[in-house]
Amino acid sequence: MTKTSEKITVLLNWKATPYHLPLFLASKLGFFTKQDISVAILEPNDPSDVTEIIGSGKIDLGLKAMIHTIAGKARGYPIKSIGTLLDEPFTGVIHPSHKSGITSDFKSLRGKKIGYVGEFGKIQLDQLARQYGMQEGEYEAVRVGMNVTDAIKRGEIDAGIGIENVQQVELEEWSVQQGRSRDDIQMLRIDELAELGCCCFCSILYIGNEDFINNNPEKVEKFMRAIKQATDYMIANPAAAYQKYVEIKPHLDTDIQRKIFQRSFRYFSRDLQNVERDWNKVTNYCKELGIVDAGFAQNQTNDFLTWKLNEQGPGGVEPATVETGVVKGGCKSCQHASISQPEVFA
Amino acid sequence: MTKTSEKITVLLNWKATPYHLPLFLASKLGFFTKQDISVAILEPNDPSDVTEIIGSGKIDLGLKAMIHTIAGKARGYPIKSIGTLLDEPFTGVIHPSHKSGITSDFKSLRGKKIGYVGEFGKIQLDQLARQYGMQEGEYEAVRVGMNVTDAIKRGEIDAGIGIENVQQVELEEWSVQQGRSRDDIQMLRIDELAELGCCCFCSILYIGNEDFINNNPEKVEKFMRAIKQATDYMIANPAAAYQKYVEIKPHLDTDIQRKIFQRSFRYFSRDLQNVERDWNKVTNYCKELGIVDAGFAQNQTNDFLTWKLNEQGPGGVEPATVETGVVKGGCKSCQHASISQPEVFA
Repeated sequence: MTKTSEKITVLLNWKATPYHLPLFLASKLGFFTKQDISVAILEPNDPSDVTEIIGSGKIDLGLKAMIHTIAGKARGYPIKSIGTLLDEPFTGVIHPSHKSGITSDFKSLRGKKIGYVGEFGKIQLDQLARQYGMQEGEYEAVRVGMNVTDAIKRGEIDAGIGIENVQQVELEEWSVQQGRSRDDIQMLRIDELAELGCCCFCSILYIGNEDFINNNPEKVEKFMRAIKQATDYMIANPAAAYQKYVEIKPHLDTDIQRKIFQRSFRYFSRDLQNVERDWNKVTNYCKELGIVDAGFAQNQTNDFLTWKLNEQGPGGVEPATVETGVVKGGCKSCQHASISQPEVFA
Repeated sequence: MTKTSEKITVLLNWKATPYHLPLFLASKLGFFTKQDISVAILEPNDPSDVTEIIGSGKIDLGLKAMIHTIAGKARGYPIKSIGTLLDEPFTGVIHPSHKSGITSDFKSLRGKKIGYVGEFGKIQLDQLARQYGMQEGEYEAVRVGMNVTDAIKRGEIDAGIGIENVQQVELEEWSVQQGRSRDDIQMLRIDELAELGCCCFCSILYIGNEDFINNNPEKVEKFMRAIKQATDYMIANPAAAYQKYVEIKPHLDTDIQRKIFQRSFRYFSRDLQNVERDWNKVTNYCKELGIVDAGFAQNQTNDFLTWKLNEQGPGGVEPATVETGVVKGGCKSCQHASISQPEVFA
């Protein structure tokens, strides 16, 4: 009796944020319609719901970080990555150093309240604690969902796990408003602490329910083609693209949100591919964390990317464009280490 | 192979707005958990997606206005209302009168650009135009989705369909910012133009996919019980409840959003029932609009409301509480006509 719907449901990994621009732009500019598909973009209220909802087939496609994409699959939710949105945004324990008492030494987290989004942040923290010889209970982990920034502002936590291009920007601007310097906001990078060599565990991926992907390969291909078209438009016209985005999302029409877009710009994957080197690293990391077993088969494919992909050398994908002005503190091995921060709103 | 999920997915009718407070509060205060259910609240980006997504069974439960709930069912999407969130918020064509040139005469819309959310706003406008002797093409209808307020601010439309407790508040505050009075923002009420006697077509309902409801009656009952508990809490402690809400949704922590909550307060259904009188009116209205045929069976039930409901007299439900200060311009026949605007943040 239930009438079926041809609409493709897509669940974001987070409330609508500047780095989601390609999805909304594809909708706004009619790129989905041109591909003859209908797409409904939905936003979660708890990021921890996403892999379960997509994995159980309630939602068709979505976005999720690499570590969660792997963990969801390992837990029996058949999800698979079909592309990359953000390559390796720096991720770590962010804090206002003037009052947190946290230094570059992981052990300085002793006695502190550390906010995390969902359960895997805690698994990562607990693993680091063991690595650095801390006992269970020597720091307090507080689950805060999407409210990392506000919980720090309110003083409910001393520090929280976030990414360089979102929470760090929000806290830096807050720091300035409080009469302190941006530099007061510091990040203990998880990739450095865990000696991973890159933040690929936090790469944000396009994912889908495996049954949906298997039963609708043409739709998935069309979806990714529209996303690529929107990504190309955004890379070529970032300021114009952002202006179109804020017409859909007026609450992103602020200086802080523009700064978040600016900081996100270098992380956008230009060719949207799943990077084999990163998948290998993160699969191994997940084994160390006890999230997957030794025989885990990577749940990712580039089969739906119908354009020329950048070559993956021994060090991984080379940056698509190398511009002037090397990013301070960039990863040694990551593709965006030598991509500058072009002035998006120049 | 796909693992199932016990999580109940709930899709809002609109981006998170102050009047969604009971849902978020039920989550925040653990009322869903106490009922032993797990609920994922999702937000749409196009309100027009909601009935199709729920009707096709992709999402379990949600919220939608009465007219859309009826229209969705008539189009073959098996959805049903299981309760009421907002009773009859005033709905109409909102405009800044100093420049719109629109008066209380519907014919003053001639030559104007009128924004509407989804297709039924246009159906209503077209019907009114016929009623008032206007020809097709004598006004321009512009589909603007959730951006009614901003499209008016930007001057892209002369007026737009909205509700008294959201878009009218936003525009009144904007009017004041522009150095004009709140009274510059006027509404041509659709219920008055269409001689309906109340704005019940826009009552916001809790709805669900019929298969989901039939297969999970216990879950639906528990869901509504948690919602009732949250509603009771909110009615008794509105300011405290709002404070908890903004901890989840920091972007609602503004004066304008508090004013929207204040204005929404009298519309919240206290007992959550579907009101027979209103369903009869709106079913008839939908027949006039050509949305449903003569034999349409109302897709609503109060079976999942396991508490004492207010009695429905010949004039419908009486107000749960009558306080001092009658609302100016209140509907003659509506239950909230004699409910005051209590000072929520007093």
